[in-house]
Amino acid sequence: MAHVNENYLKLPGNYLFASIAQKVAEFSKHHPDASIIRLGIGDVTRPLAPAIIQAMHKAVDEMGHADTFRGYGPEQGYDFLRQAIIKGDYHRRNISLDLDEVFVSDGAKTDVACIQEIFGQDLKFAVADPVYPVYLDSNVMVGHTGNYLADKGIYEQVVYLPCTAENGFKAQPPTEKVDIVYLCNPSNPTGTAMSKAELETWVKAAHDQNFIIIYDSAYETYITEEDIPHSIFEIDGAKEIAIELRSFSKCAGFTGTRCAYVVVPHACKAYTKDGKAVSLNPLWNRRQCTFFNGTPYVIQRAAEAYYSPEGWAQCQADVNYYMDNAHTIRDGLIAAGYTVYGATNSPYAWVQTPHQMKSWEFFDLLLEKAHVVTTPGEGFGPHGEGYLRLTAFGTKENTAAAIARIADLKLCK
Amino acid sequence: MAHVNENYLKLPGNYLFASIAQKVAEFSKHHPDASIIRLGIGDVTRPLAPAIIQAMHKAVDEMGHADTFRGYGPEQGYDFLRQAIIKGDYHRRNISLDLDEVFVSDGAKTDVACIQEIFGQDLKFAVADPVYPVYLDSNVMVGHTGNYLADKGIYEQVVYLPCTAENGFKAQPPTEKVDIVYLCNPSNPTGTAMSKAELETWVKAAHDQNFIIIYDSAYETYITEEDIPHSIFEIDGAKEIAIELRSFSKCAGFTGTRCAYVVVPHACKAYTKDGKAVSLNPLWNRRQCTFFNGTPYVIQRAAEAYYSPEGWAQCQADVNYYMDNAHTIRDGLIAAGYTVYGATNSPYAWVQTPHQMKSWEFFDLLLEKAHVVTTPGEGFGPHGEGYLRLTAFGTKENTAAAIARIADLKLCK
Repeated sequence: MAHVNENYLKLPGNYLFASIAQKVAEFSKHHPDASIIRLGIGDVTRPLAPAIIQAMHKAVDEMGHADTFRGYGPEQGYDFLRQAIIKGDYHRRNISLDLDEVFVSDGAKTDVACIQEIFGQDLKFAVADPVYPVYLDSNVMVGHTGNYLADKGIYEQVVYLPCTAENGFKAQPPTEKVDIVYLCNPSNPTGTAMSKAELETWVKAAHDQNFIIIYDSAYETYITEEDIPHSIFEIDGAKEIAIELRSFSKCAGFTGTRCAYVVVPHACKAYTKDGKAVSLNPLWNRRQCTFFNGTPYVIQRAAEAYYSPEGWAQCQADVNYYMDNAHTIRDGLIAAGYTVYGATNSPYAWVQTPHQMKSWEFFDLLLEKAHVVTTPGEGFGPHGEGYLRLTAFGTKENTAAAIARIADLKLCK
Repeated sequence: MAHVNENYLKLPGNYLFASIAQKVAEFSKHHPDASIIRLGIGDVTRPLAPAIIQAMHKAVDEMGHADTFRGYGPEQGYDFLRQAIIKGDYHRRNISLDLDEVFVSDGAKTDVACIQEIFGQDLKFAVADPVYPVYLDSNVMVGHTGNYLADKGIYEQVVYLPCTAENGFKAQPPTEKVDIVYLCNPSNPTGTAMSKAELETWVKAAHDQNFIIIYDSAYETYITEEDIPHSIFEIDGAKEIAIELRSFSKCAGFTGTRCAYVVVPHACKAYTKDGKAVSLNPLWNRRQCTFFNGTPYVIQRAAEAYYSPEGWAQCQADVNYYMDNAHTIRDGLIAAGYTVYGATNSPYAWVQTPHQMKSWEFFDLLLEKAHVVTTPGEGFGPHGEGYLRLTAFGTKENTAAAIARIADLKLCK
């Protein structure tokens, strides 16, 4: 008689964005004429860049001819893409990496969720609060967390690092013993970003306290301030204690195209129970070789084209487009009397609810009165209560219209 | 201090096909002029069908325009593809399925490796021996097995179902208690296929002994005999006890294009430790919604095109091409004095080594003397010792040349 994985039954509800989608579908059903604007899920709206489209057509043609057809590729990704990644994202910032330290994948959500698999079952981890839900949910589902305490909205054995207005929404190193820490910089959902000095404090803490940082830099392309690192490997000593996760979703519009990568430096090590140091790179390699069969060839060529001069310029134009939206959101809501964080080095604005309204309550109100979809902060953790996340990934017109609608409600006056 | 997942350290060596690739690379290095023919890994060589190429170009164009661009898709796959799958693969065989019983993915290797995640940590499972290594390795890596017993080539706590010439290489239901059984029909690596009556015995055993069948039918498209089921759901009562995994890799040449699907019927249930039945469908849904972010839109359109009348006919022509190769292998080696199984309902021939040679020894000999790459049976489990797997996925010319070279060695005369 097969037992189910009862860890799954600890999860309190649906995946956050599935719950939102359900609420919006319900609303649409009852208000079929409402013109809904979505500033909720972090999904891009600009089409793929022409250079990327061109590369995909070329790759599709190759797949149609016997002499250029590609079957199984390397599980770790083709060398052409790994080389382009190293050159484009790392050499440019004076970071050297070996080819086999880069693992191409089908998306950062997969990588984020699966990276815990190479660690022991006794894993104790810390997450920012609020945080992208997948860090937490993936660990719940494999049994790293203890039970969910519904009254507190937290899991028993997880170390939460509160991100509040008081600390600028920047997680501080844990005071208790942990094995790994998930850090997202710039942060999803708060849109705030740690400076180089702040990240240095983290790297030092990881060395001193002997933990590994799972560094999610999916939003690095939105950094506008000079002092914010784009990679944790800009910090001396980071290769010994960090794994970095990157995505093409937000920098090149790949949310529906699916490509990402993980950097696992050879120097990054964990331990057997009897204290022997083991490099994590071959473990992740083995994981990928058994649980994955590579990213589609056509998609890898698309990702490679992002690094071409044309692709890079075209994608940067889209990033600028979204950042203009971020400023529309930030400036418009501030003008309407809201307190707004983020949206300077990030496509996300973190907006305080008016009159200490609960975040789901404010979510419902904006959906019903302004027909604007947002993401309630509480969905990202207990310290997200009292905030909403708004994303800059809509069209210019929709973003401006949504902010005008919210301002027109005059909730802060 | 983070501990590594020490289960990974139980794995005796590299992933089988990585080991073979390494050996071939080594050989090539020392014999740069050797014309190597690869009948080893089950990788296709025919280009994608024109109808599929056309659909991909169309989808790429859609991704290049704002009004047809697609961002995040449903984690479970787009309805257009799930509908095409149900109509093309199931309605055609009088099997009804609900849309939400089908989960589109990035490949059957991923699905095969991850499906165990929805079961309890105390999972006891059975596999055929020999068997596709991923069933076993994935379970080793999450701790569902004991240690590797190098002298026997098996893991403690795993139930092996020997497939031998005596039982026609068909696994028999286990005599001891297990929770799940991985069944591959037609079988990889032996190329043999269970009849409807034999599969009925399995479904009955699963009901009687209360286990779940993970049914891998990645090769169903190669079935030529009438009496062999294409889906386990052709058998009455299978929905209560089976999960089916399918791939576009072999039927439509998607090894480098990456798409597959899993069918988890609502009726299929496992149990909590206190005996409550839980449907596995919402568990797999939750797994996919947290650990995966959907298959690329362009790839899903490619898979959909497989089911179009043109796509279907073009892919069937490729399947026929490969099956002609299978017959070349089977008939040619039999004529050269070899004992050969499979290659009738499968692109795989299972060839007995001559003079009781060990399978890696015969692999080396064929690589060195005939410059032909095969797969040693021992790589698929201890009962694979004494056999090689040859695949029909090469070109017609290469396949004929490889068999001629092997015959010319006159090892069986």
